[in-house]
Amino acid sequence: MGNKTMLTDLYQITMMAGYVDNQKDDVATFDLFIRDLPKDWGYFIAAGIEDAVDYITSIKFTGNDIDYLRQQGIFEDSFLSFLKDFRFTGEVYAVKEGSVVFPNEPIMRVTANRTQAQFLETTLLNMINFQTMIASKASRVVDAASGASVIEFGLRRAQEEDAALKGARAAYIGGAVSTSNVKAGMQYGIPISGTQAHSFIMSYDDEIDAFRAYARTFPKKSILLIDTYNTCEGARKAAVVAKEMEMRGEKLVGVRLDSGDLDHLSKRVRSILNEEGLPYVKIFVSNDLNEYKIAGLVQNHAPIDAYGVGTEMITAKPVSALPGVYKLVEDVDGPKMKFSPGKLTYPGVKQVYRAYGDDGMMQYDIMALDGEFEGGESLLEQAVSNGKRVSTRRELSEIRQYALEGVSRLPHGLRCVEAVGRYEVKVSEGIHGMIAGLNARYSLVK
Amino acid sequence: MGNKTMLTDLYQITMMAGYVDNQKDDVATFDLFIRDLPKDWGYFIAAGIEDAVDYITSIKFTGNDIDYLRQQGIFEDSFLSFLKDFRFTGEVYAVKEGSVVFPNEPIMRVTANRTQAQFLETTLLNMINFQTMIASKASRVVDAASGASVIEFGLRRAQEEDAALKGARAAYIGGAVSTSNVKAGMQYGIPISGTQAHSFIMSYDDEIDAFRAYARTFPKKSILLIDTYNTCEGARKAAVVAKEMEMRGEKLVGVRLDSGDLDHLSKRVRSILNEEGLPYVKIFVSNDLNEYKIAGLVQNHAPIDAYGVGTEMITAKPVSALPGVYKLVEDVDGPKMKFSPGKLTYPGVKQVYRAYGDDGMMQYDIMALDGEFEGGESLLEQAVSNGKRVSTRRELSEIRQYALEGVSRLPHGLRCVEAVGRYEVKVSEGIHGMIAGLNARYSLVK
Repeated sequence: MGNKTMLTDLYQITMMAGYVDNQKDDVATFDLFIRDLPKDWGYFIAAGIEDAVDYITSIKFTGNDIDYLRQQGIFEDSFLSFLKDFRFTGEVYAVKEGSVVFPNEPIMRVTANRTQAQFLETTLLNMINFQTMIASKASRVVDAASGASVIEFGLRRAQEEDAALKGARAAYIGGAVSTSNVKAGMQYGIPISGTQAHSFIMSYDDEIDAFRAYARTFPKKSILLIDTYNTCEGARKAAVVAKEMEMRGEKLVGVRLDSGDLDHLSKRVRSILNEEGLPYVKIFVSNDLNEYKIAGLVQNHAPIDAYGVGTEMITAKPVSALPGVYKLVEDVDGPKMKFSPGKLTYPGVKQVYRAYGDDGMMQYDIMALDGEFEGGESLLEQAVSNGKRVSTRRELSEIRQYALEGVSRLPHGLRCVEAVGRYEVKVSEGIHGMIAGLNARYSLVK
Repeated sequence: MGNKTMLTDLYQITMMAGYVDNQKDDVATFDLFIRDLPKDWGYFIAAGIEDAVDYITSIKFTGNDIDYLRQQGIFEDSFLSFLKDFRFTGEVYAVKEGSVVFPNEPIMRVTANRTQAQFLETTLLNMINFQTMIASKASRVVDAASGASVIEFGLRRAQEEDAALKGARAAYIGGAVSTSNVKAGMQYGIPISGTQAHSFIMSYDDEIDAFRAYARTFPKKSILLIDTYNTCEGARKAAVVAKEMEMRGEKLVGVRLDSGDLDHLSKRVRSILNEEGLPYVKIFVSNDLNEYKIAGLVQNHAPIDAYGVGTEMITAKPVSALPGVYKLVEDVDGPKMKFSPGKLTYPGVKQVYRAYGDDGMMQYDIMALDGEFEGGESLLEQAVSNGKRVSTRRELSEIRQYALEGVSRLPHGLRCVEAVGRYEVKVSEGIHGMIAGLNARYSLVK
């Protein structure tokens, strides 16, 4: 990860200058949380946490950065000197990456000098909003596939390089089995997969010659794309090549369909392959898939072994962005909340507790003031102390496993493609009391 | 730009292995184009071209890359040696970055050995799909603002870092005047702007104290956020501070509204400011804006001077991704086209010509075979020859100016928020003849 210190909104730096100039650099606590679930979603898978901790512990303005800011002509020299030594020296609590979380629950809680805590806002949101969105979307897609494999195919439609790389990682956390993205594979150790495009088939006069050529080059890994001209014809030619491979002691892995009515065509292709004695040849499909289309195919018993999902998983279309925010909840003057219409926040330094039923399934969460309860599973764990990482860096495979386990303990309705019901997040008496107090105080001030 | 050679789909490398292994590495031509306009859109602004040329001319597999590929256990040593010396040595034609373009028109045309030309597909699409989408979206937003300024505010909701940086650049090409993203400002020379967040206001017991503190620190650049508690009250307090600033010989730049009914509130706030003799204090607004909401505010004569646009501009919500593709159009065996349902392509090595009316306005484009016509404005220009850049690298300000001029010459209906009509892109007789020939040949083969 390159240094992200300058990847921030200018107002974070102007506010910092305001705090320094006005002797307001006392300790404050901010919460990062997501206001609401997108339509049809039942839960989030928190992601981007490890990146966020790396970011927080690496903040540092370089000489070039400070020169650039000086050129803006709005900052005093004394403030620019302050920036030179600016580091994060506070405390961060965060949920484990891969945790199931719900709206309004703090995913991360930052306590530090106000300049430091405030400064993190934009960059944390940029990372956690996106990665949580993709991990959650992927989890929905994987769940819809009901045991069939989901492969992340989105690089060409991802919103530039980082979205593709961190998106592939988040999709893997959400349960995808592999990615087409070679760099993501190399960078994160995600399994990679890929076959051929229509252009390969079209490079040969006859489709079957393209199949034969590919099978010769990849005798153990061939998946043949059969829809360039006519899918059923393509399936018959693939069957011919598969029989030729059998004669050489090889096995065709699969065929891929990338257009047309995938329910109808997958059934036709399955029949053709089975009639030729090729029940082991798998059917891969792609073509603008999403969780809704996959759920439909599963419901119709389409004989599909793996789904390649591109655009809609890597961009979370139609969601585009989660409404994640980062809000001041307490400072030296006490708890804080925002009263703007539709933008209320829960005040105070908080913890989230999760309750399970006897069957091990999640029952409800309670958002409470830190220390208000004892025991139970608490979601927020210390990640940074005095500006240093104190949480163990977790392996990607472990994060993925944790997410899959979390999803398996969700109430069933929340896992439907159109989620049924809402998970209960209770708000403790301590928080309710605090809100009442602030309301009264605000009314007096007003 | 870090090296993007490994930022590709695995199938680009497996196909390459197939071509090498089967002596198919002859010359081929591919077109990059966008299949269709999103709902309501009338045109695209091509972006990402300069990045694409940098990418093409820097392709190189490192020793580590090749080691990683070897570990996959699917490639022969001879192919891995081939990769070691793999470079792009072909020809690329592209439209100027910032050009107005339409569906099916080649934005880029690549002629090279098949392995090289094919290999570019995924990465070019990743860059050009996204940047073109954002430049086009921003152009719509800027046009809707009808002369008021548009500021790019999207970093916290962008799909990770590159989307934020390249998105800020693309939004500037599309006509935004500045960005909140400090790193984008530093990297690309885009003007940066920013004020303060609600958390700054909430750090003070009384809103007016926050305003006073900020104005003291930024006497020349203060824009006060007035909606934390009550927008009209906030406006009255901002007016008090503005009068105090006048006493010190300073001027308040503006106030910002970030919630509520912006039409109604901007009119109330304008009245309050004017009554206090502060007609020069500008009104900035933000809060989930898009081109439709801005067009509505403009239509209602809301007295708004500048719009801060975040999520919907930086992600192009609800579009998420453009349907850009990269297709084989000709090789040594002649022109090629794909017949899959809904995925037809135009065959042949092509050029695009643009015709203007006597008033200088764009009339229609003609997509023709290269060399089929003489004269007229041709959109595709040579960018790479023998693998080396031959196009002059253009400044961002020049690209932005070119885009704005292009938009000013568009038929009016295409610039409506809900575009009226479609721009005519004619297909030449040469291409029609080629398609007829291929259809006949395909029917025979079948």
